[in-house]
Amino acid sequence: MTLATDSLTGAGAWIKAMVDGWADYSEEEEKLTRTFLSPQHKACSEAVMKAMRAAGMTARLDAVGNVVGRYEAAEPGAKTLITGSHIDTVRDAGAYDGNLGVALPIACIAELDSQNKRLPYAIEVVAFGDEEGVRFPTTLSGSRTIAGTIDLATLSVTDAEGVSLRDALVHFGCDPEGIAGEARKREEVAAFVEVHIEQGPVLESEGLPVGTVTAINGASRFAITLEGMAGHAGTVPMHLRRDALAGAAEMVAAIEQRAAAEEGLVATVGRLSVAPGAINVIPGKVTFTLDIRAPENDQRKAAVAALKEKLAAIAKRRGLELEIELLYEEGAVACDARLMDQLDAAIARQGIRALRLPSGAGHDAMALSALCPIAMLFVRCGGGISHNPLESITAEDAEAAARVFLDFLEHFDPNL
Amino acid sequence: MTLATDSLTGAGAWIKAMVDGWADYSEEEEKLTRTFLSPQHKACSEAVMKAMRAAGMTARLDAVGNVVGRYEAAEPGAKTLITGSHIDTVRDAGAYDGNLGVALPIACIAELDSQNKRLPYAIEVVAFGDEEGVRFPTTLSGSRTIAGTIDLATLSVTDAEGVSLRDALVHFGCDPEGIAGEARKREEVAAFVEVHIEQGPVLESEGLPVGTVTAINGASRFAITLEGMAGHAGTVPMHLRRDALAGAAEMVAAIEQRAAAEEGLVATVGRLSVAPGAINVIPGKVTFTLDIRAPENDQRKAAVAALKEKLAAIAKRRGLELEIELLYEEGAVACDARLMDQLDAAIARQGIRALRLPSGAGHDAMALSALCPIAMLFVRCGGGISHNPLESITAEDAEAAARVFLDFLEHFDPNL
Repeated sequence: MTLATDSLTGAGAWIKAMVDGWADYSEEEEKLTRTFLSPQHKACSEAVMKAMRAAGMTARLDAVGNVVGRYEAAEPGAKTLITGSHIDTVRDAGAYDGNLGVALPIACIAELDSQNKRLPYAIEVVAFGDEEGVRFPTTLSGSRTIAGTIDLATLSVTDAEGVSLRDALVHFGCDPEGIAGEARKREEVAAFVEVHIEQGPVLESEGLPVGTVTAINGASRFAITLEGMAGHAGTVPMHLRRDALAGAAEMVAAIEQRAAAEEGLVATVGRLSVAPGAINVIPGKVTFTLDIRAPENDQRKAAVAALKEKLAAIAKRRGLELEIELLYEEGAVACDARLMDQLDAAIARQGIRALRLPSGAGHDAMALSALCPIAMLFVRCGGGISHNPLESITAEDAEAAARVFLDFLEHFDPNL
Repeated sequence: MTLATDSLTGAGAWIKAMVDGWADYSEEEEKLTRTFLSPQHKACSEAVMKAMRAAGMTARLDAVGNVVGRYEAAEPGAKTLITGSHIDTVRDAGAYDGNLGVALPIACIAELDSQNKRLPYAIEVVAFGDEEGVRFPTTLSGSRTIAGTIDLATLSVTDAEGVSLRDALVHFGCDPEGIAGEARKREEVAAFVEVHIEQGPVLESEGLPVGTVTAINGASRFAITLEGMAGHAGTVPMHLRRDALAGAAEMVAAIEQRAAAEEGLVATVGRLSVAPGAINVIPGKVTFTLDIRAPENDQRKAAVAALKEKLAAIAKRRGLELEIELLYEEGAVACDARLMDQLDAAIARQGIRALRLPSGAGHDAMALSALCPIAMLFVRCGGGISHNPLESITAEDAEAAARVFLDFLEHFDPNL
């Protein structure tokens, strides 16, 4: 491996130690849970600001609870490259989801700072506060604020205790009136590049520490209800049954088959429940969910249309009533072709085979895409596991990713 | 339709009215729930005894809570034909399950009595108390007592309130010490013939009011656990998944396919649960139940063996851990060939096409098969529905069944 920046030796361990330290800021003992605007989120924000300042950056808490660190450009008036990720977590979370994308750029900037090196653009590292959407019925409010797309009506939503987002922000030390003013101007921002664990098994199966993200997949989610006829498991012959679960099983198989036949497409039935649900009763009703994602909207829409047709045919043949309710739809967000090329080039310069892969999960980068070109660098995680205390990365991979990211920064031209 | 016994005109309405009247003895308002040895079971028993006596029978409560009505033979020392069914119910039950098989023979005997007619054998109508097994973790204790196969250790089992079966019997007015003495002697009993609603849709689909039962199906029940690997619904490509629900769906389809391919065989997956069960998480674990029934044990065992092999192959191909636990196994009970012929002949004499069909559900006749030859006459029920307040029969069908049963009784030779 060619090491363009030998002084990052040990950076992987440093990054891991920093993220592991932040994992102590948790609302629950023995597990990591850090929700938006909680006291533990506040304590973690202060730790992040301390690390930023130690790396030669200025740091502040913005009006919506983001931590914003800034490393000035060589010349005033230069554009800004924004990076960062989120420091809120799911319940019983892993340490690296989001947090890695905050600590890793700080390590790179610490390296630049130790070399007294300024780049022809400013760098901002943002630790977003609201990506997981656990506490409030909202998500991406931090990244949407910076993108200028936040709906201020969101401030009235409340958490399970009835606390409004507005009151929680005030309690956190923020001034919600300043939110609109946090929006960046398009002409001042060069790009947004997010570093994140993959949360999937592709890099591991390819034997690679990092990969360049092509798109954040669009997703469609449905609730599907099948009604047949309940009956006695012993007395109704097979040909007189209208078994809702047998119908659902055929549908689950058709869904899997369709997704497996197309590169990039994934489809998941994650919930399924059977009524009445007794060992000796033929199922009369089944409800299940369907989550379909693809890097391109047309691919996803074609799969949804084909599956709707297939499910209707199965239901009709079996005499089942079928209802398909759309729960959620979010379009795919493409990464910027030029930024992908630059990430690939940095990866290649570090002696690593460049691989492109889609992101199946959502990220703050989705919100930033409304403001500027975006890109993402994925880092291999153990077993593809995330949202789980077993989430892991190696120090070697963190170091390789830091080298790639610093190399990318050193070659980035904000005016191209 | 040839009517051999014209005086049963109106018997269908009489039988329905009697059963509907018994349905008022319920532990729950607005629904029928009458469990073994409840006060409502006691009140219903008294109503049954009253009806028996009005029909010219003697009636008594036996040591295990059965009501036993007896219509003496023309000559002392003749054998006894036992008929009857159960008067306990499931929770939120229909009125006819069990109860029809008590009221209908009483109507037939009332007719014989009104003609002052005695047969060359005595008839006992037994209203068994414990067929549904709702209150105590036991079942068929009434019919097993008469068959002489009851295990007296059963008396120590307790209900949800901690009341033992023994204490409940005493409270009901029975003497548990007399249970052993209730066993009938083989040489004194000619046969047991039970009338029961079909609890399935076969007679309705064949357009027939009654049918002759060939066997009470044997049943095997299993709990099946499949473990794969949970994962993010967006980030794990299809080819890297070990989706427990996709595997279970393939198994449910294989189970249905196998049962549909064989006359008489039925297989049901009645319960299925998915963990973790979130819309955006690939299922890591699925548990489901399998209930397989067939009129012949060899057929059932062959199907179980073939399905175990098939399920293991599916699990192996998908990298899933499979566990199959046997929960319950009960052999098939064949009906007596000579009794079936006699029922068919009575049906044919009443101008009805004779049809034979297996019973998918268990009945008191299973227990009596340890004592004597058994047979069952099924009566059509609306939509094949039972164990449900929607359970129904028509007065026309009840009358046709009564004519068939009385015709059978008038032609029955206890010494053949």
